[in-house]
Amino acid sequence: MFSDHLKKIVSSVDGAIACSVMGFDGIAVETHQAEAGAAAAADLDLATAWVEFANVLSQLKQVAGTLKTGAVAELSVNTEKCITLMRMVNADYFLVLGMSPQANYGKGRYVLRVTAPLIAKEL
Amino acid sequence: MFSDHLKKIVSSVDGAIACSVMGFDGIAVETHQAEAGAAAAADLDLATAWVEFANVLSQLKQVAGTLKTGAVAELSVNTEKCITLMRMVNADYFLVLGMSPQANYGKGRYVLRVTAPLIAKEL
Repeated sequence: MFSDHLKKIVSSVDGAIACSVMGFDGIAVETHQAEAGAAAAADLDLATAWVEFANVLSQLKQVAGTLKTGAVAELSVNTEKCITLMRMVNADYFLVLGMSPQANYGKGRYVLRVTAPLIAKEL
Repeated sequence: MFSDHLKKIVSSVDGAIACSVMGFDGIAVETHQAEAGAAAAADLDLATAWVEFANVLSQLKQVAGTLKTGAVAELSVNTEKCITLMRMVNADYFLVLGMSPQANYGKGRYVLRVTAPLIAKEL
């Protein structure tokens, strides 16, 4: 189940706020929020931010086809109040993880990288 | 001098290919390439990729003003063949570092973070 994977991601990364499987249309298929992350997710209005970031990722995916650097695998947008990591799952979906600025960034990258193929199998 | 800062960044990050101070118009003010990075920079056509990524960062900067997550501080675009880290210097300029996929990502982030304020003073 998606939700088990998302729970696992959120619980294994210190500072994680919420994690979603999202489509490039900006619609979340499934979301898991850290228990301690509900207030932060609401304050930061993560849902709105992620729609915008999904749009950016979608554009990057298209432009990458014209570049020699290869397909986009991962995008990270770090703002004053939040770290947002996105990892491609397949041509239509990606994983997005919102973390506090003090979160374990390396762990977040690692967990998304190993989880993306597991989610791809279930889509 | 900018070039000294850029040299220092490139030499202190294993796997660094090239580093620039760029404007949001996609024009590089100054660039330093690793000696061993010239072939990679040409193969990957980093100059073209960075113009596109600068465009994405510029859009993100604008959209961030409408979001509650705060101003964009850092953007990372990781493709199959290249890791690209961008760090805001001020409202008009940013630092961009291209690295091989096996590069020391954490070191790259750290070095850009500490160098950006030094470059801001000289702009």
